[in-house]
Amino acid sequence: MRQDVSYFNCDIADGIATVSLDRPERKNPLTFDSYAELRDWFRDLHYDDTVKAVVFAPNGGNFSSGGDVHDIIGPLTKMNMKELLAFTRMTGDLVKAMVNCGTPIIAAVDGVCAGAGAIISMASDLRLATPEAKTAFLFNRVGLAGCDMGACAILPRIIGQGRAAELLYLGRSMSAEEGVAWGYFNKVVEAGELLSAAQTMARRIADGPGFANMMTKTMLAQEWSMSIEQAIEAEAQAQAICMQGQDFHRAYHAFVAKEKPVFEGD
Amino acid sequence: MRQDVSYFNCDIADGIATVSLDRPERKNPLTFDSYAELRDWFRDLHYDDTVKAVVFAPNGGNFSSGGDVHDIIGPLTKMNMKELLAFTRMTGDLVKAMVNCGTPIIAAVDGVCAGAGAIISMASDLRLATPEAKTAFLFNRVGLAGCDMGACAILPRIIGQGRAAELLYLGRSMSAEEGVAWGYFNKVVEAGELLSAAQTMARRIADGPGFANMMTKTMLAQEWSMSIEQAIEAEAQAQAICMQGQDFHRAYHAFVAKEKPVFEGD
Amino acid sequence: MRQDVSYFNCDIADGIATVSLDRPERKNPLTFDSYAELRDWFRDLHYDDTVKAVVFAPNGGNFSSGGDVHDIIGPLTKMNMKELLAFTRMTGDLVKAMVNCGTPIIAAVDGVCAGAGAIISMASDLRLATPEAKTAFLFNRVGLAGCDMGACAILPRIIGQGRAAELLYLGRSMSAEEGVAWGYFNKVVEAGELLSAAQTMARRIADGPGFANMMTKTMLAQEWSMSIEQAIEAEAQAQAICMQGQDFHRAYHAFVAKEKPVFEGD
Repeated sequence: MRQDVSYFNCDIADGIATVSLDRPERKNPLTFDSYAELRDWFRDLHYDDTVKAVVFAPNGGNFSSGGDVHDIIGPLTKMNMKELLAFTRMTGDLVKAMVNCGTPIIAAVDGVCAGAGAIISMASDLRLATPEAKTAFLFNRVGLAGCDMGACAILPRIIGQGRAAELLYLGRSMSAEEGVAWGYFNKVVEAGELLSAAQTMARRIADGPGFANMMTKTMLAQEWSMSIEQAIEAEAQAQAICMQGQDFHRAYHAFVAKEKPVFEGD
Repeated sequence: MRQDVSYFNCDIADGIATVSLDRPERKNPLTFDSYAELRDWFRDLHYDDTVKAVVFAPNGGNFSSGGDVHDIIGPLTKMNMKELLAFTRMTGDLVKAMVNCGTPIIAAVDGVCAGAGAIISMASDLRLATPEAKTAFLFNRVGLAGCDMGACAILPRIIGQGRAAELLYLGRSMSAEEGVAWGYFNKVVEAGELLSAAQTMARRIADGPGFANMMTKTMLAQEWSMSIEQAIEAEAQAQAICMQGQDFHRAYHAFVAKEKPVFEGD
Repeated sequence: MRQDVSYFNCDIADGIATVSLDRPERKNPLTFDSYAELRDWFRDLHYDDTVKAVVFAPNGGNFSSGGDVHDIIGPLTKMNMKELLAFTRMTGDLVKAMVNCGTPIIAAVDGVCAGAGAIISMASDLRLATPEAKTAFLFNRVGLAGCDMGACAILPRIIGQGRAAELLYLGRSMSAEEGVAWGYFNKVVEAGELLSAAQTMARRIADGPGFANMMTKTMLAQEWSMSIEQAIEAEAQAQAICMQGQDFHRAYHAFVAKEKPVFEGD
């Protein structure tokens, strides 16, 4: 998986990719270029077998301020409908790429996490935060609707329909304390420990059965709108596939030998 | 939007409609007439552009005791299936009308909030409560099923499947404390402050971008049973529509001028 | 409903069936035989009218350790795809049978509740736990995916998408304290009171309107992937059916007579 990216930061080591947005002096806003490159990078990840977990990290004390007012919002106000739809589809494609990449993503949220930045944390699989994290789905404060990049579908499934409605209608920040109480954040840790906590979690996932984790991620999305009956049949098929995997055999033999299994991701 | 209603109370001022059920001496039960008139009023709201937020208020210390035992339950026990289905469809149509009215609804719950009264709070977008609020989906205590007016679909999305199941199988009251911990209520305030807290929230929404808020409400319902991929495409289209709205331009220009945006709802 | 089962424990008294897995010295693992017999027993329950509530109880301080390593996992590592799919479909069929049995199921969880044991608690309608309960969807620790027996569809609806993802990607135990805070458990009680608390809850349900409770259970599953509009119409039909039931009439007449209704389940 390539680390030579131009519009965001990317570092890959020991099967864990750590990515972050850039320009900390402006709280890491997204631009047309970083949207597109992130979309392409997560799409490539779908075919990659070396990265086992992704940490989406903050930069300089903030996660992301979202779409840049000057670089994105200004130009959008001058676009025609065809151009606007191309833009909203590109941003939606980033979420689709994150959901379909097959690799668990851990968002490590500190400071400002707003607009499309909040969406990136929402589209991740797991979320850690510092007490200073302020997550704001603030679309209606810039005159837009809360239905941005999947928020009206995904946010209610994480924190419940009533809390999601409040955040989307008021555009207010969700505190770290609220976020962990509501199930948005999996854990709150001090700022100095955020990255290491995220890396530890990523390590644990990366050391797990990679093919099976990919299947877990696939099915969490795939079963979203299935009936219970359809979901159970879909899981019967998906798990049968995993039972022919070598990691299942490795776990069994390790158990019998009273050893800790070493997974290899096949 | 008309305020001259016969079977409930309605007051409209500054873009905020405050409605409540009547007959506080009987804890504001619903009747065939108030069901039908509320359904029609919320249906009309769909085409109205002057009301930006609705507060569904209590009356005399109670929200609503639900379908009246003498006026509704008695007659129902004498109906044939065709008549019963006409009734359950009418009550369901009230929920559909609330969900489809395009205007955020804030339920301000105090005291008794039972049966169809509980459903009205559930079908609202946001919910405030006093410590005295007792919300009871008590259908099985009158020999009926929990599947009333959408409860088996909507309640689990607000408070989770396990808690919803408990309320529906036991018919017990949910306390205000439980409700806020579970994400049913957005906030608990003292009885003396309930209406002003609801009005403040309504004011904030009414001062927001009305067209965009309508789109948020539309999509929160519309994406209910979509796949993630479908939801993201639906939001790309919905948000592109909002980006051609004037409120988006107003917000941008206000930001550049370092002013607070004044939204006009188009 | 038959109590003469071979591979689990079953006791039926006063309309309440209490079932538990056996072999407490090995923490009540599941075997091919107990899976199949439980599936058949819950399928039969669908046509039974005498059992009004089921308590799925622990045995010897533990709920269940899940699929037995020697009796199940070992043989699975030797199976071909056709055999594996037959197995995963059988386990999925147990969940389908529990969901479709028409009778509310209360899981009383103590001690170890792991793998397929955790799934059984998840597939129940209500859940009680002791402070010692450790519920682990530990599939990825044996090299498998979290998509087992419906977990990727059902668990997120109970505790939210983010918390479900954490449990499925890390395979870690959920404590009783977490479980009740997240809406997985309805209540935590001391070990000595677990069974009586579950029986009390089952009694309350069994004394309720059985036909209506069956309809509540049916619709909680049936509306899983419906749109809001579809769900409301489905409930209008389901509730109209219940309104022709005798329990609805009994409740009305009891109310008028200021008596407590005695439900008979028709």
